[in-house]
Amino acid sequence: MSAIDFRLIKKDRDSAARLGSLTTPHGRIDTPIFMPVGTQATVKAMTPEELREVGAQIILANTYHLYIRPGHELVARLGGLHEFMHWPGPILTDSGGFQVFSLGELRKISEEGVRFQSHLDGSYHFISPEDSIAIQEALGGDIIMCFDECPPYPAEFGYVRKSMEMTSRWAKRCKDAHHRSDQALFGIVQGGMYRELREESIGEICRIGFDGYALGGLSVGEEKELMHEIMGYCAPLLPADKPRYVMGIGTPEDLIEGINAGVDMFDCVMPTRNARNGMLFTTFGRVNIKGAAYAEDRLPIDPACSCYVCKNYSRAYLRHLYRSGEILASRLNTWHNLHYYQALMADARQAIAEGRFTRFRQEFYAKRQAS
Amino acid sequence: MSAIDFRLIKKDRDSAARLGSLTTPHGRIDTPIFMPVGTQATVKAMTPEELREVGAQIILANTYHLYIRPGHELVARLGGLHEFMHWPGPILTDSGGFQVFSLGELRKISEEGVRFQSHLDGSYHFISPEDSIAIQEALGGDIIMCFDECPPYPAEFGYVRKSMEMTSRWAKRCKDAHHRSDQALFGIVQGGMYRELREESIGEICRIGFDGYALGGLSVGEEKELMHEIMGYCAPLLPADKPRYVMGIGTPEDLIEGINAGVDMFDCVMPTRNARNGMLFTTFGRVNIKGAAYAEDRLPIDPACSCYVCKNYSRAYLRHLYRSGEILASRLNTWHNLHYYQALMADARQAIAEGRFTRFRQEFYAKRQAS
Repeated sequence: MSAIDFRLIKKDRDSAARLGSLTTPHGRIDTPIFMPVGTQATVKAMTPEELREVGAQIILANTYHLYIRPGHELVARLGGLHEFMHWPGPILTDSGGFQVFSLGELRKISEEGVRFQSHLDGSYHFISPEDSIAIQEALGGDIIMCFDECPPYPAEFGYVRKSMEMTSRWAKRCKDAHHRSDQALFGIVQGGMYRELREESIGEICRIGFDGYALGGLSVGEEKELMHEIMGYCAPLLPADKPRYVMGIGTPEDLIEGINAGVDMFDCVMPTRNARNGMLFTTFGRVNIKGAAYAEDRLPIDPACSCYVCKNYSRAYLRHLYRSGEILASRLNTWHNLHYYQALMADARQAIAEGRFTRFRQEFYAKRQAS
Repeated sequence: MSAIDFRLIKKDRDSAARLGSLTTPHGRIDTPIFMPVGTQATVKAMTPEELREVGAQIILANTYHLYIRPGHELVARLGGLHEFMHWPGPILTDSGGFQVFSLGELRKISEEGVRFQSHLDGSYHFISPEDSIAIQEALGGDIIMCFDECPPYPAEFGYVRKSMEMTSRWAKRCKDAHHRSDQALFGIVQGGMYRELREESIGEICRIGFDGYALGGLSVGEEKELMHEIMGYCAPLLPADKPRYVMGIGTPEDLIEGINAGVDMFDCVMPTRNARNGMLFTTFGRVNIKGAAYAEDRLPIDPACSCYVCKNYSRAYLRHLYRSGEILASRLNTWHNLHYYQALMADARQAIAEGRFTRFRQEFYAKRQAS
């Protein structure tokens, strides 16, 4: 028995896009879905109520960060991540793998696991696949991820093959180590930018069998076309009756291409991080609110947007807040960007439901070119 | 005709405390009142809707900061401060005097006004009393303040006398320069820590005649007892039928003592600034949320508090957010502190209304000593 229940509601006729419903222990979510990233048990600058208001249904939390601070055992003693952070809805935790590998010189990989130094205090730590599962079980997310190795880009075929094979062995160890029946475990496909290795990885990960399948190791520096190509040939090879998740993706365009390829779940820091840097997403493309052109601009960020920020604040005021380094700048910018991402996904779901996703995708690009 | 209407509802029997109602062009406020400080056209970390939710009825904005950035003329072209910052309620602007004098070496005072350098880019500026009024008229607050000189502490009697006399001449110039009939103008009493000068200043400022009267030049480094003593002998000398405002004050204790002395209005950055530094106000005294003692504490900041933060978050989580440098830490801490200040004022008003302010004041101190 899986802890989650995935139902396919509709499959698009002209593309691989699909509409689904995923029931988790903490609630049901519509797919395709975008998950805001709550690295340190908070989606930066937002309250849980505001996340609901912008349309978020599930959020992601980072295992590495929470393991380092405040510690997974403390979170467990305080009732788990949902209670700790006052988010009663579904949560997905990553495995910590990607963050640990991002530490570069501070980590060393072996068959057994990864030895690394904390980015906070330089203290030494070791995480094996079994440890990652134990940490994620303590955190208590609805969906947890296998511990994987994410190879850099570019990387030699030989290295990526070895890495991919170890990720498969680690996936088996993760499955064996996982015991909480109220958590789903997703496998992660690796294989870098090599189609042969991606296909082999899919075969191995699917043979082990998981509640859902993720594509890892994308958005690590490769060209957009390559990323979209890999999503395009990988997604259809994943089991149709399980959710498909592309990790760490992406721009609005990446989401549209992912949906077009048949992907159901996405997460990315882009809407939140870019917001804090003054970069706003709109139906007509990106707006850098710092720009002098907005100094006396009475319009909202996006006149076509219905969010709280666009209903109440001018570009001129948002520019003033940003230039003044005000916390409200980060808040309002994050609010708008997350609303944009959630609205985009809701519109995409609606388009799939009404059998017009391909036209929706064309219009999405046309609006940007027109402006 | 004054732009505001002040009604005294009740005068306490055992103290000088008074309950009032102040109607401004942007709404009615209950006095005694605490005004959160929105320096740069935003009360740091809060939306206007949240300010309403914590009970704020009027906010203060800083003329110096808004003159420097984004500029008062820009604010005026965008419809004034209320529209610019999406706060439809009453606003009081200070005169810029205190901020300019705080620049220290960067400013030079003469009878004509103050020449100073911007703290942002070092550019040279000059503000006369007439300029300050013009800037405040452009910003469009409901209540504006006379441009005054705030002497340092300690300061020689001779210096403070000269400064106080110039403040009186500036007050006259401010009144003459003020033309907007939809704005009230308050005079400011100076005189440092010298009773003789304070009394003389009150006489001069009242002779000119204003819509309300403020005590300036307090909380500049003097002992608490001295500050309370000055409030105690100055407030009763101010016209009983006009609002009395003590500027830049203070701690919860200062507010209680001010109310006890018959003061109607207060403002201070303390609840907001301290919040961002992890210092929280409670019925039982101050809490430093950084403390290791709170690492696994499931209690809310103040179990007696009914605010959104205390209803939904543990001290352990707030400590984690603070240590992690999260924006949500500043948000939740500010929310709680402003709620504490507003609830304290609401409770004080209720106590005056019910003729038990003196007992309320005793209980306020008793709760702190008990913990």
